[in-house]
Amino acid sequence: MADAITPRGEDYSKWYIDVVLTAKLADYSPVRGCMIIRPNGYQLWENMQRVLDGMFKETGHENAYFPLFIPESFLAREAEHVEGFAKECAVVTHSRLRVSEDGTGLEPDPDSRLEENLVVRPTSETIIWDSYRKWIQSWRDLPIKINQWANVVRWEMRTRLFLRTMEFLWQEGHTAHATEQEAVDETLLILDLYARFVEDYMAIPVIKGIKTESERFAGAVDTYCIEALMQDGKALQAGTSHFLGQNFAKAFDCTFQNQDNELEHVWATSWGVSTRLIGALVMTHSDDHGLVLPPRLAPTQVVLVPIFRKEEEKSLVLDAADKVRRELSERGIAVRLDDREGQRPGWKFTEHEVQGVPVRLAIGPRDVQNGTVELARRDTRTKETVAADGVVDHVAKTLEDIQQSLFDRAAEFRSEHTTTVDSYDEFKDTLESKGGFVLAHWDGTAETEARIKNETKATIRCLPLQKGDEPGVDMITGKPSSQRVYFARAY
Amino acid sequence: MADAITPRGEDYSKWYIDVVLTAKLADYSPVRGCMIIRPNGYQLWENMQRVLDGMFKETGHENAYFPLFIPESFLAREAEHVEGFAKECAVVTHSRLRVSEDGTGLEPDPDSRLEENLVVRPTSETIIWDSYRKWIQSWRDLPIKINQWANVVRWEMRTRLFLRTMEFLWQEGHTAHATEQEAVDETLLILDLYARFVEDYMAIPVIKGIKTESERFAGAVDTYCIEALMQDGKALQAGTSHFLGQNFAKAFDCTFQNQDNELEHVWATSWGVSTRLIGALVMTHSDDHGLVLPPRLAPTQVVLVPIFRKEEEKSLVLDAADKVRRELSERGIAVRLDDREGQRPGWKFTEHEVQGVPVRLAIGPRDVQNGTVELARRDTRTKETVAADGVVDHVAKTLEDIQQSLFDRAAEFRSEHTTTVDSYDEFKDTLESKGGFVLAHWDGTAETEARIKNETKATIRCLPLQKGDEPGVDMITGKPSSQRVYFARAY
Repeated sequence: MADAITPRGEDYSKWYIDVVLTAKLADYSPVRGCMIIRPNGYQLWENMQRVLDGMFKETGHENAYFPLFIPESFLAREAEHVEGFAKECAVVTHSRLRVSEDGTGLEPDPDSRLEENLVVRPTSETIIWDSYRKWIQSWRDLPIKINQWANVVRWEMRTRLFLRTMEFLWQEGHTAHATEQEAVDETLLILDLYARFVEDYMAIPVIKGIKTESERFAGAVDTYCIEALMQDGKALQAGTSHFLGQNFAKAFDCTFQNQDNELEHVWATSWGVSTRLIGALVMTHSDDHGLVLPPRLAPTQVVLVPIFRKEEEKSLVLDAADKVRRELSERGIAVRLDDREGQRPGWKFTEHEVQGVPVRLAIGPRDVQNGTVELARRDTRTKETVAADGVVDHVAKTLEDIQQSLFDRAAEFRSEHTTTVDSYDEFKDTLESKGGFVLAHWDGTAETEARIKNETKATIRCLPLQKGDEPGVDMITGKPSSQRVYFARAY
Repeated sequence: MADAITPRGEDYSKWYIDVVLTAKLADYSPVRGCMIIRPNGYQLWENMQRVLDGMFKETGHENAYFPLFIPESFLAREAEHVEGFAKECAVVTHSRLRVSEDGTGLEPDPDSRLEENLVVRPTSETIIWDSYRKWIQSWRDLPIKINQWANVVRWEMRTRLFLRTMEFLWQEGHTAHATEQEAVDETLLILDLYARFVEDYMAIPVIKGIKTESERFAGAVDTYCIEALMQDGKALQAGTSHFLGQNFAKAFDCTFQNQDNELEHVWATSWGVSTRLIGALVMTHSDDHGLVLPPRLAPTQVVLVPIFRKEEEKSLVLDAADKVRRELSERGIAVRLDDREGQRPGWKFTEHEVQGVPVRLAIGPRDVQNGTVELARRDTRTKETVAADGVVDHVAKTLEDIQQSLFDRAAEFRSEHTTTVDSYDEFKDTLESKGGFVLAHWDGTAETEARIKNETKATIRCLPLQKGDEPGVDMITGKPSSQRVYFARAY
């Protein structure tokens, strides 16, 4: 199994795909660009959903569900939005298939041509704001804070499992507010929530910042983001939170009577994270032996492998293993006793390693005799023998330790791969030699941004919210700059 | 609010839609036939999902996610399947929109015409069995027991919120087995699981049975179902579990090496329930005052309404109400303190009644003085004054009582509306006069079944698994019949 994984040093892209396939997180689908999320991957997504959904509800959001299909004309209502999405969408034109004239296959029945084409939602601002117009009359109807867990489709040409797929799963929040300030506050509240989730659960450190105009969501006034750094030195946008101003309210004529009895357009936000996060998780923590999962999100936190050769050892070992399983389970630890027959312990060890189970316990006849258990950590691949008596406390502590270690290791990697530069030569050298984030001054123009992108493939990931202290001058044009910004090549 | 609801006696169909809209369960969408599931409806669905998902996992099923799009040619592989689904599906033909030639709108870009059309999944047997072919080689790879929570699309002409919509949410289980017996067992296990869920949580009694050939799922060998009876005397199919034999394995060439080293086709099941169940819930329990929810699925089980006129009463009443809220919450009861200002208590009472909250508690200044609380039941619309001291126990008992009462009432209604007949005249009279289930002998032929359907609009809902004792003769043809079957007009 582990042989199926190309080492990172040899081919990082291939390593990534090998890990995803070998750990059975996902598989290719017969439809180009779509993916199959296998049970191992979906359990991870369910755990992520559970935590995020709890955070949304704690902060006053409710879930709802809006239609998959959007009338073509809706997309066209917001000028930037149509620019951003019409060029890559699945268009439904017929409602029926018939046997083709040559009798060999199926074809759309011409009589079922739709009067108006439908687009499979690439995002739901338009269809949701059409409803908000109907639901909102007065300030008393505000705020509306709705989230939706859904599939969306964007017709990407170059796809990669989890990171960029034609169909993906995500959550999209859409809120409506009476004041600009309230909408901005919501945008930032969600940005913080995303950062907390990604850091505390996924163990991935992120930079919070704001996008430049050219990297902004199509239809937003401001796009805030969290940016993470992968092991190959490329950045990955892990979540976005958009302040939409009154753009969609104006496009869909959504007004409300304010407390002074005046008619105003509603203020809006939207925000989302997707199954792309699973890609980020794999890329941040995994190694040449396969997946490495942070304990807080691992579907199986501990696996117990019983070891015996003779039949008379079997019940002895299984009883001891089952006792440990029960104790761990009572402590709320997600434990699995792998008592499958017909597979050798070594084979099981490899499988659980490839699939990223954080802690593996092994119990053999000698362990039963000595009152011990062998504990192996997935992150460090180290083993130790611990007393069976205190094993639950030890495992609980180890899981916490792994969670923290993964974060620390990623934070250290990021810190080693964040370079402050003052000249364009230094900038280009850094990108070539070590990659990672490059902090540089920028004059705030789209021209300079575009030139850098063309010449180096690096984009401005964000203007960090946590500003450095010194103003300076643009490394290319010499024009004034109020703060350094984060550049990187990115996924 | 309640004024917006047409009485059942006047127009049952209109009553149903009024309840759904007024209780804010769902709303119409700009796309014909699609619906918007509003937060009240979606919370209900989340509660249903949580219970069902737990039952699936307890019985060894795992969740996964397969693509939304199915290549046109896949649908055509299974002869009956294509017949059943090709005539009502959304067909994706293009991957891009462009500004139309007259510049007024958008149109599919002809250059983006797909090589092979894609169908938005009406159900996922074909795309899933294409993967199973890749994942299954040996008996060691079996069984596979996967469930998927997803949206599906069937191009229905006549739609009704929840009951029949073009897009709906559902779960679809797809399992693969080494033997016929194991697959049949799985089909029946799920049928029982569905029946338990619908009876124990939704408080709707169901008949378990098997469909006739003409009512079978397109591609199944046997379709098992649970059938419920609505308040207007029409039946509603609440869930189906299909034994698919080797049909899809043959269509997708999915074989495995059995323990005797022979190559065999895999045995299959599929099964699903959908947001249609929410329609069944509304139709079974609700009344002319709005929604009635069974406590085990109600998002809010208890609402607390504080009542005060003067400012000095406010904190007194709110403190007492909050104490009750805390106590109920600690007991695990989903309670909401409705302390919204600017809405009178009477208005709140009506809103919670319309939205079906099972128990309403009201606390005023006199209650605080007397150490009492007013308790109102949604199902019976009765009120009583209870001691604040024992209110938690009393509420817990009342919730259980409501759950049981709703089931008993529905079971009684069904029993009153189940008629055993021996002649076709009696059959037709019963359908006209009181509707409901009609138990009659049938000769087992599709001809007789079709004739009855044409003449009376009644279909055979199922051949019940719990058989009556007596054989008999068909009420029309006089041919022999081994058991009575359930007829009804249906949704």
